[in-house]
Amino acid sequence: MVDVTPHLSTLLHAPLDHLQTHLLAHQADIERWLRLQWQDTPAPFYASVDLRNAGFKLAPVDTNLFPAGFNNLNASSIPLAIQAVQSAIERLNISARNILLIPENHTRNLFYLESVATLRDILQKAGYQVRIGSLLPDLQTPQAFTLPSKQSLLLEPLIRDDDCLVVKDFVPCLVLLNNDLSLGRPPILEYLHQQIVPPLHVGWSSRLKSSYFNIYSQVAKEFSEQIDIDPWLIDPQFRNCGEINFMKKEGYECLADNVDALLSVIQRKYSEYNVPHEPFVIVKADAGSYGMGVMTVHNGEEILALNRKQRTRMSSTKEGQKISQVILQEGVYTFETWGPKKAVAEPVVYMIDHFVVGGFYRVHTTRGINENLNAPGMHFEPLAFINSCITPDKNMAVDADPNRFYAYGVIARLALLAAARELN
Amino acid sequence: MVDVTPHLSTLLHAPLDHLQTHLLAHQADIERWLRLQWQDTPAPFYASVDLRNAGFKLAPVDTNLFPAGFNNLNASSIPLAIQAVQSAIERLNISARNILLIPENHTRNLFYLESVATLRDILQKAGYQVRIGSLLPDLQTPQAFTLPSKQSLLLEPLIRDDDCLVVKDFVPCLVLLNNDLSLGRPPILEYLHQQIVPPLHVGWSSRLKSSYFNIYSQVAKEFSEQIDIDPWLIDPQFRNCGEINFMKKEGYECLADNVDALLSVIQRKYSEYNVPHEPFVIVKADAGSYGMGVMTVHNGEEILALNRKQRTRMSSTKEGQKISQVILQEGVYTFETWGPKKAVAEPVVYMIDHFVVGGFYRVHTTRGINENLNAPGMHFEPLAFINSCITPDKNMAVDADPNRFYAYGVIARLALLAAARELN
Repeated sequence: MVDVTPHLSTLLHAPLDHLQTHLLAHQADIERWLRLQWQDTPAPFYASVDLRNAGFKLAPVDTNLFPAGFNNLNASSIPLAIQAVQSAIERLNISARNILLIPENHTRNLFYLESVATLRDILQKAGYQVRIGSLLPDLQTPQAFTLPSKQSLLLEPLIRDDDCLVVKDFVPCLVLLNNDLSLGRPPILEYLHQQIVPPLHVGWSSRLKSSYFNIYSQVAKEFSEQIDIDPWLIDPQFRNCGEINFMKKEGYECLADNVDALLSVIQRKYSEYNVPHEPFVIVKADAGSYGMGVMTVHNGEEILALNRKQRTRMSSTKEGQKISQVILQEGVYTFETWGPKKAVAEPVVYMIDHFVVGGFYRVHTTRGINENLNAPGMHFEPLAFINSCITPDKNMAVDADPNRFYAYGVIARLALLAAARELN
Repeated sequence: MVDVTPHLSTLLHAPLDHLQTHLLAHQADIERWLRLQWQDTPAPFYASVDLRNAGFKLAPVDTNLFPAGFNNLNASSIPLAIQAVQSAIERLNISARNILLIPENHTRNLFYLESVATLRDILQKAGYQVRIGSLLPDLQTPQAFTLPSKQSLLLEPLIRDDDCLVVKDFVPCLVLLNNDLSLGRPPILEYLHQQIVPPLHVGWSSRLKSSYFNIYSQVAKEFSEQIDIDPWLIDPQFRNCGEINFMKKEGYECLADNVDALLSVIQRKYSEYNVPHEPFVIVKADAGSYGMGVMTVHNGEEILALNRKQRTRMSSTKEGQKISQVILQEGVYTFETWGPKKAVAEPVVYMIDHFVVGGFYRVHTTRGINENLNAPGMHFEPLAFINSCITPDKNMAVDADPNRFYAYGVIARLALLAAARELN
């Protein structure tokens, strides 16, 4: 078992110490506030949240409602995930017995298939019969895979039987989507008699990061009032523009202007907190990304000076989907590093229902502290089992691992709450 | 971390293999059946169940609704316990913030106080403010303890304020009993405005093991029909008599006759399954025990031949409470041994709400396979973290650790269900 935890290497951590002190001091209030929030707006079935910890700021930068990467969780997270799945499904459908899992169509991505196999195991261990139905258009017969982990996986063709979705000899009570619907809502999933979670309208075909972060800002504001902190400490600022076409350079002026405006806002905050770093902005597709179509910029002119290759890269995302809208998001440095080579790392937190079940670090050995790490060359380091994100300890230092990971669990749940409000 | 698991040393394990095979094959049905049961009869707040595994039989022999021993759980069980507490209290009182924990009055039993401290930590980490109010009659001011584990504990005097139970400057929303009320229902806890869990009527002042095991037999019967097994494999037979007085030898004939009748029933089952062992009966107090007032007998005559010392030992239990009723329970051999010296061991399973959160082995180096192990000289060995009782694995052998512990979790939950029915 890996027992390493990343090192937070920054001289400026007073603002975050302040935040963590407040989180610990108000723990009972925070948890109560969150409980009441889940009562009003039930949490999505599951989610993963990418966080960035800059020492002076701790914020979510992406929330995935169709999480992959379950295979990267520490084995000791699995019982927590099993228990949370039991809670979640009891709430949805107490008499459910059969679950149909619908994954992405990435049949060549063995890492993804390992995640699907782990998710299937979690559901089975939680006490359900599970089969995997695939949206692959050319799948006529079941396709079996044996994964590098030795797990086997069977993708079966989906069959629509009147208002019921089935696979051969298996009628599910619940359909669990692990496909983010980037390509749109498949007709075979529409108007089902069975319950689909998450619901179809949460797919990337109908979601925008900018609307999500708008809701997140409101959540961060309400939460910050509860514990009396500056919401900026946990909330990445953002702007968005109208239609943009990188190839035709349409919408460029607006983009460049907004980059500069956002940088000014960030600079004012950096000055307030004496942050000795250069502000930056992340430009990314407003709908989905898979880490594709993401760019770091330090001033508006960089946009105007993009070369053809860069513009091509910003023009499409997963499965060749065109990018016509982007979100400009305040870049949040990550000052966490992994291992002796000080590879840049960012935490990813996993939640099922409203429970934080685990997480890991996304680590990249060749990317910088101001870059997107969700890119080829990344790898994952599970959190040690003691760092379960739900064991804060007031007897330890405010920046001790259990307390740092508790803070990650709180901020991740704020990101989850924003998703819950978006869903409802 | 201890990664040893006890050895099941018996040649006759076919009946249990049969049981475990059925449990694994029907896992989804079992879990669904249990979910529907919890809907009808919500689980008690918490419980621990002592199991005995004879290779040919796996049965609960005691169910504690005021569990101690939380300090014996593996550290990796704590996150599961925290998450289960969150589920349990959300269901009881979603807006609760303050919890008052009422422990036993054992101020000299440091092991027990360690358990109270661990339970307090679990509640705190689950997001609640926790204070400990003591029923000690002579406690006038708060009493602080520093435990061997370095944890500190503060026992505070209970104050009754109209229909509200408080400690100084702390009004709880929920009162959590960890005191089994062997001495009766304290008036200070009666007619409270606040919710008490478990409710007062579950205390040993009003409970009888024989009524409980009556309900358990019914649960075992219903469950066995679901998965088509002989209920005897999971159900210890029992008898009870009327009033008994060991010192005055009153009620002796009835006791001896019932021992013999019960032994005949067991012998018939042993013959049916070709069990090459001698049947035995455990005689114990029908109300509470703390492992006190417990005796192994192999025939009715042993009762009639008890000497004065033995009769004295059978006359009183915890805090000197007189024993006037006993339960005669089918003795279940334990064929599990711990370590190279083959110390006799029995599993104890912990549940919070309807979730199995962990367990440990009670180990005794000088007691036999047909004796009560809850006795001075026992010690505890935590289960390794991978053996969480909720991770059955159909790809592994039916008697592999995760499957054996899953079976323990199922039988423990049947015992929990019986308690739930008793409560309601």
